[in-house]
Formats: sequence, structure tokens, C-alpha cells
Amino acid sequence: MGADEWIQGTARAPRVADVGEFGLIERLAALVQPDAGGRARAGEIRIGDDAALWQPTPDRWEVLTTDALVEGVHFKLTTTGWRDLGWKALAENVSDIAAMGAQPRRAFVTLGLRPDTSVEDLEDLYRGMGDLACDLDVSIVGGDTVSSPVIMISVTVVGELAGPGLRRAAGRPGDLLAVTGTLGGSGGGLALLEGGVVAPTNDDDRTLVERHRRPRPRVREGLLLAEAGIRCGMDLSDGLLGDAAKLAAASEVGITIREPDVPVEGALSRRFGERARGLAITGGEDYELLVAGPGATLEQAAARLAAADLARLTVVGRLTSEGVGRVRLVDADGQEVPPPPASWDHFSPPSGAA
Amino acid sequence: MGADEWIQGTARAPRVADVGEFGLIERLAALVQPDAGGRARAGEIRIGDDAALWQPTPDRWEVLTTDALVEGVHFKLTTTGWRDLGWKALAENVSDIAAMGAQPRRAFVTLGLRPDTSVEDLEDLYRGMGDLACDLDVSIVGGDTVSSPVIMISVTVVGELAGPGLRRAAGRPGDLLAVTGTLGGSGGGLALLEGGVVAPTNDDDRTLVERHRRPRPRVREGLLLAEAGIRCGMDLSDGLLGDAAKLAAASEVGITIREPDVPVEGALSRRFGERARGLAITGGEDYELLVAGPGATLEQAAARLAAADLARLTVVGRLTSEGVGRVRLVDADGQEVPPPPASWDHFSPPSGAA
Repeated sequence: MGADEWIQGTARAPRVADVGEFGLIERLAALVQPDAGGRARAGEIRIGDDAALWQPTPDRWEVLTTDALVEGVHFKLTTTGWRDLGWKALAENVSDIAAMGAQPRRAFVTLGLRPDTSVEDLEDLYRGMGDLACDLDVSIVGGDTVSSPVIMISVTVVGELAGPGLRRAAGRPGDLLAVTGTLGGSGGGLALLEGGVVAPTNDDDRTLVERHRRPRPRVREGLLLAEAGIRCGMDLSDGLLGDAAKLAAASEVGITIREPDVPVEGALSRRFGERARGLAITGGEDYELLVAGPGATLEQAAARLAAADLARLTVVGRLTSEGVGRVRLVDADGQEVPPPPASWDHFSPPSGAA
Repeated sequence: MGADEWIQGTARAPRVADVGEFGLIERLAALVQPDAGGRARAGEIRIGDDAALWQPTPDRWEVLTTDALVEGVHFKLTTTGWRDLGWKALAENVSDIAAMGAQPRRAFVTLGLRPDTSVEDLEDLYRGMGDLACDLDVSIVGGDTVSSPVIMISVTVVGELAGPGLRRAAGRPGDLLAVTGTLGGSGGGLALLEGGVVAPTNDDDRTLVERHRRPRPRVREGLLLAEAGIRCGMDLSDGLLGDAAKLAAASEVGITIREPDVPVEGALSRRFGERARGLAITGGEDYELLVAGPGATLEQAAARLAAADLARLTVVGRLTSEGVGRVRLVDADGQEVPPPPASWDHFSPPSGAA
């Protein structure tokens, strides 16, 4: 704090809420980066991708991601069961590895627990993680358990990368932008759950709630896309519009998304009607992959995904040299349209949800 | 729950507090171990050592440890400054890597933060981690930051192991037991801090408080001990008596510790008098190494540590085939003596602390 500020008495030390998550990470990372006068070596690690990446030997890359879920902030035990919570805690981290085009191998779990937490509930949490780990051939090793006033689940996943993998910063102007699978399902499921649909009674509701509760990270798709020569990618955790902006910033390109081309989850369209497309564009936690590459490479990759009976790849837009860091949404005629409102009341349940 | 229990109405589902940390870890680990009907593969990972261990390629071992510190449970911001907290959060994890005889390489940090947390305080936290990371040639990469009602610091450290390293389970009857450095300094420092000595005014107090606030993990010692042929080891985080019992259980041996041989921190003896030895035997957070091996191997290892100007190695006892899992404390004549009280009032400050 400068003397002037002190004398005027107006200065206040900045708080986390003032600088935001990304501003904070930037300031903290600067302290431990060798080129910023920090004292620690950063080695071969890259910050700012879905996972950290390093090369232990000349012919091998490893990736690592670590993330935490806090009760009341990231989940509510009133709408998420313990088994689904276990699945989802692991799925989010595994998806970060899939986003690098890497194979997740090992998961390490640290639990912050209240002393009155039920052991059976925690066994359910582990069963949920085990369900997904088994599907994806990931080994789980219990890390630490610590006492905590709120439930906290911290998961670290380590994976392996055979080739260059997928990077957020590897997009080039002229590349096409594509997504795996369909979008908005998780947001639709959350809207149903928040609207009181706890036990869905029809197939569409079941599909949407399942998409929210048990997202399936696109591990095999990520591996195959990287193998097919795609170099740019990330996973969709915060919604297509928000995540595309991150890719645009990292690759220093603009992005144009053709709204009518966004693949909307079928159950979402049937249940939410006109509002479905908005959910597909802004809804989070789909954990599909967003990738960019030359048209011919994407076409080949799509054919290989189809041949392997994996998720469908849909072109939704293009990377441009104009409007760096910005995402434009256009209609079928190429006219810019306003983004759908991203507020949470957007996620209210459809009329007739039951 | 059995029908009988239900009818009698006496059953209560067990809580975390009922089964304890180790009981809980055992139950949860069983769910993800392949030999226990769990669904996930555990691969080459070993649970129950200071860090998880795996072999990515036939000639390389990697180790990983993950641990969390929760405000109010593991630290109080009233007695621990942010910069020291950063050092200590990293030191605890690095010590788990040192305990395997491995070289720590990369640290990943996830912070749970209240929105009103000061950014400058967090920068201090990172500076503290950076201080230690620089000393030990460890790279720090900022992981995730999440919102949380209490401050939470989750650290993951990945390291490399050249040879077989140190394991808790590798002790054999007849091995001698030894510790690096001196014991009790951290416990003494904590006693001073809790007694209100926030700014120590003499060298002994400074030494003790520094031992508590900025413990120095024995990384170089662990590497050299493993290189010298020692196979059994762990770090001292919970106190000599408690940690020796873990080593005894893992190695399926009994342990006899000769109380007069325990190397008591000199400043502790001067400040705490007769109570110093008790603190050295039960006090936690010294982060020295506890190792076991044949006498000749230990002697060689001690000579190499001395030649490298590293911490002194002191023999404090012996592994036995009797009393498996148990630790006996004996006096100079080999007579069993009762352990010093391990209660926390043991840690009240010495009279005259100021």
C-alpha cells in the first residue's frame, strides 16, 4: 500500500472476490514461475490447460489434474446422492485428462469429513467412484482423510499421453470448431432436479437427470481425436459459450459459432421446447469435448469415431483471425445473434415437469 | 442392518468418529481393491505407505502424496502466519516423499477460499511454498481454486524414485532403529506458541518456534539413506512412539526403544528441562526420518550422511520378533518404562516462557 493511499484512508487490500478466480491464479502463478522473478522452478509444467503436463523421460508425457468439490458450493446432498457424487467427483477430473487427449491411469482421493459423517454414505461415495473407474480402467487409491467442518472431496488424477495430445492454445485461424455428442443434457437435468423432479418417471427425464448425475467423460474420444491428428481441444464444463471463449483466448483467435448447428440433446428438445437451444449453448457440466482442426483432419477424425462406435463429432463453427478472444454466435444466414441469457433462472424447470 | 437390530431399535449406522481414520481408510480401500471384490483395478499402487508408488515403465518408479490442511482443524491463522503456512503445507507433503527415499519433483496446489480472503495473504502463502520449493528444487504449479466456507489447502506432490526406496513394511527382526536429527523441537515450539510466545526473544525459543513453523523435510537424507542400502523408513509426523507403532505394524515386528538414546533437541532440553525427553518421544511434526536396517548398513549410512554434512543418524532401538505391532520403551538397564503422557496438557509452555 502506498503512503498516499494510506493517508487518504481509502485503500483496501484486494480480496479474492475482487480479482476473481483467473486473476488470482495469474497472480499466484507469477510468484512461482521462473521468468517472473519467482523463486521456484516451474520446470516443464504448463499452467492454463485442463491439466498440468510434464515429460519425465524424453519419450513420455504425463498429465495431472487436481480439483476439489465443497459441500454447499459444488454439490448439495439434498439433490445429489453419495454414489452419484462419487461418480461425478471422479468424472470431472477424468474429463480434464480426456481433454488433453490422454489416458487417465490413477486417481487419488482426499476427503474432508465431519466426524458425524456416515461410513455407509462414504462407502457409497467410493462405490460411485469405483463404478466409473472400472468403466475407464482407472485405479483408485485412497489418499488422506482429514477432519473438516464441511464435506470436501479433493481428487487428483494422473494420466499418460502418447503423442502431443490436445491443447487449448493449439487452434489456428481457419480451423473448424467441433463438439462431441450432444449438449445441454446436464443443464436440463439440473433444471429438472431443482424443479423437484427427484425420481424421474419418463425416459426423457431419466436421460437428462442421468446426464447431470453421471456424466461420461469422453476418454476414448479424446484419445482417438489426438491419434487422428487433432491438436486443439478442451472439455466443456462451463458451457459452450464460456468454454469457447477460453479456447479463443488461449489460441489467440476469434470464434464464430453457428447456432443452428449446435447439437442439442434430443431429450432436452422434447422436454424444454424452444428453450432447449439456449440450454445447449450456455448449460454447464456436459463434459463433452470441444476441438478445433483443419476441415480434412476433423472429417477423418469423425469417421474414425463413427467406425469405433464412439460419440458423434459435429462441426459448430470456425476459428478466425478477427475478434481475438471473442465468440460470435450467428444464425443460419451468418447474421450475429445475441447469446441466450446465461442467468440461472434460465434453468427453471419446464412447465409440466413432474 | 440386521432385522434383530432393527427391531430392538438400538442400531445406529456407524459414523466416521466411530471407526476412526484408519478403520475408515481400510473400509474404503477395500471397495476399490481388486482382491476384495471391488470393481476398480488398484494396479501397482500400494496403500499404507507415506506415499503411493507405481511403476510407469519397467525402469522407473513414481511416488505421489496428497494431503489437505483445513483452517481451525490443522492450523489457526492466529498462531501461524500465511507465509509459514505455505511452507508447512508443502513441507508436510514433501516429507512424505522424502520418507520413501524419493526425490520430490512437482507440487500441485488446490485452495479452498472464502471470497473475503486477502489476495496479499495468498501471495504470502505462495511465497512460503516458493521458499521451500526453491531450497529443494521442486516445481510448484497452481492447481485449482474453489470457493469454500473455511480455508483449505490441498497439496499433491509427485516424486521420482531411482531404486527400491524406503518402505514401512521392509523392517526385519534384528534390524536397528534410527532417527535423523533431533526430536521434540516442533512440539516445544508449539508449546511456546500456545503459551503466548509469538515473537521469541532468545535463540533457544527462536530455534524451537522455527522448528515448528518451518520444518525441513529430510529429502537429501532420504535419498542418501536409500542409496546406502536402507530399505525401511517413514517420516515422523505424529511423534516417535506413535509412528514407530505404525512401522512395527507394517513390518510385523515388535520395537524396543531405549529412551536415553533418543536424541533430544538441545534448545528443548535447555528450555523444558526434565519434560524435554517426553516431548521428544511423543511430540509430532518433527518431520525427521525413522529408519531401520542391519547395524552395518546403518553405520555406513551414518558415515555417508556425516561426510555429506547432512543430519546425524542416531540409533534409538531395535526391531524384534516378539510383541508384533507393539513399541516398548526401556531405560538404560533395559527395564521397560511407561511412556510419557501423550495428552496435550503435556504441551503447556515451560514456566518462564516469555
